[in-house]
Amino acid sequence: MSLSVPPELIADLCRVALACADAARPETLRHFRAPALAADNKQAGGFDPVTEGDRAAERAMREVLARLRPDDAILGEEYGASAGSTGVTWVLDPIDGTRAYLAGAPTWGTLVAAGDGAAPLVGLIDQPHTDERFFGAPGEAWLDHAGSRRDLATRDTARIEDAILLTTFPEIGSPEDRAAFSRVSERARLTRYGLDCYAYGLLAAGHVDLVIEAGLQAYDIQGPMAVVQAAGGIVTTWDGGKAGRGGRIIAAANADLHAAALELLGRI
Amino acid sequence: MSLSVPPELIADLCRVALACADAARPETLRHFRAPALAADNKQAGGFDPVTEGDRAAERAMREVLARLRPDDAILGEEYGASAGSTGVTWVLDPIDGTRAYLAGAPTWGTLVAAGDGAAPLVGLIDQPHTDERFFGAPGEAWLDHAGSRRDLATRDTARIEDAILLTTFPEIGSPEDRAAFSRVSERARLTRYGLDCYAYGLLAAGHVDLVIEAGLQAYDIQGPMAVVQAAGGIVTTWDGGKAGRGGRIIAAANADLHAAALELLGRI
Repeated sequence: MSLSVPPELIADLCRVALACADAARPETLRHFRAPALAADNKQAGGFDPVTEGDRAAERAMREVLARLRPDDAILGEEYGASAGSTGVTWVLDPIDGTRAYLAGAPTWGTLVAAGDGAAPLVGLIDQPHTDERFFGAPGEAWLDHAGSRRDLATRDTARIEDAILLTTFPEIGSPEDRAAFSRVSERARLTRYGLDCYAYGLLAAGHVDLVIEAGLQAYDIQGPMAVVQAAGGIVTTWDGGKAGRGGRIIAAANADLHAAALELLGRI
Repeated sequence: MSLSVPPELIADLCRVALACADAARPETLRHFRAPALAADNKQAGGFDPVTEGDRAAERAMREVLARLRPDDAILGEEYGASAGSTGVTWVLDPIDGTRAYLAGAPTWGTLVAAGDGAAPLVGLIDQPHTDERFFGAPGEAWLDHAGSRRDLATRDTARIEDAILLTTFPEIGSPEDRAAFSRVSERARLTRYGLDCYAYGLLAAGHVDLVIEAGLQAYDIQGPMAVVQAAGGIVTTWDGGKAGRGGRIIAAANADLHAAALELLGRI
């Protein structure tokens, strides 16, 4: 999609993505750390929590899109897919990391992406409690922290032995997935857990080198993917395929590190 | 110690603890997320990182103590123990969660406690990046977030099945320790990793219910312990003993939950 996209469209998508994040913030913050915050379980036989914060924030973003880009398609975590006529699809996760949100931890985020549905062109990770917004689009990648903006760029760590690796769950994926993850983790300089989407912001900002996760949905990865790619990083599936549909995902600071990690993940 | 402590001394320890945290902040923030941040390894055969941020922040706190409480004893993570003559010992951890600090994650903190060395009377957890300070002393427990203050109180969750459990490392302690931890984790509503000292702040604020860790030092626990206890929680070792020397530690929101978790931890 990106080859044929006019700059005016990109600028408009950037503007509207930021408006979506602005609209979601008061809704997520209203319920964050509120004594009455309750979670419903979306998953039979498991625990996939959703809160009123998730729902209210997605509604707020959909209202922005209905006003500013009414003919685009939308895929949202809480309210599903709606068709459009422009070729642009918005991919929304009002609260990525609902477990962190429930626990009061500041590693959840609001994810927004715009692209062709399969891959993001513009995307962001917004963390309202810390007042940090990681943004990526063709030609720009920045972090705004409390009104102060700086450019994002991934770093040049080339060896797994020097890399900091992040993931959300130690109980990542299947037993085979865990074994593959361990092959990278055992070599890495440092592994940290529980970071949710914030991990991709830290990667884009050059503080860590690898994020490896499994079981992601399109709405979990498209916003972070746009940010990491705009900052110079690489995001693929564990077998090197396209990441925009989710699944088992690796994000790496650079091509050398990506290749080294893919080799370890794929080793039988 | 607390039974015989005059209110004027408590007030002075509170004032000086806050001054220590104020002095540490610019030192930790200066190196946090800095491109040139390097870590030395303190542990032969392992990875126990220390950065210039750790050292500079402890030096800044020791300068405050030398000026305001020159005759007190000090136990600090980076510069060791020094004797005093007043009966008061300061227990300092300039950066608890140096791994999080290295990764750019906002869950590390500066820990300050004052007491008799064995148990804290006054303590705090300071998170400079999010601008949050959790404070506990006899008769007061509060969180200051960006200049806005609210009281801290643990919550009344009575059953493990309803509890949110936090810890730092999934690879906690020995195999036996991990088995004990799993007995609690498998029953809990939700378990989250990677929170460092921030976990105790979330417990004191009533957002989570249990923190279980192993291998702690006195300087890892005395600051958090003062905060949690002042907010109504209970902090002991896994066998119900005194927590001030560190070791295997459990912090619980209330007595019922503490008893239920202790029973699971101790089961053979």
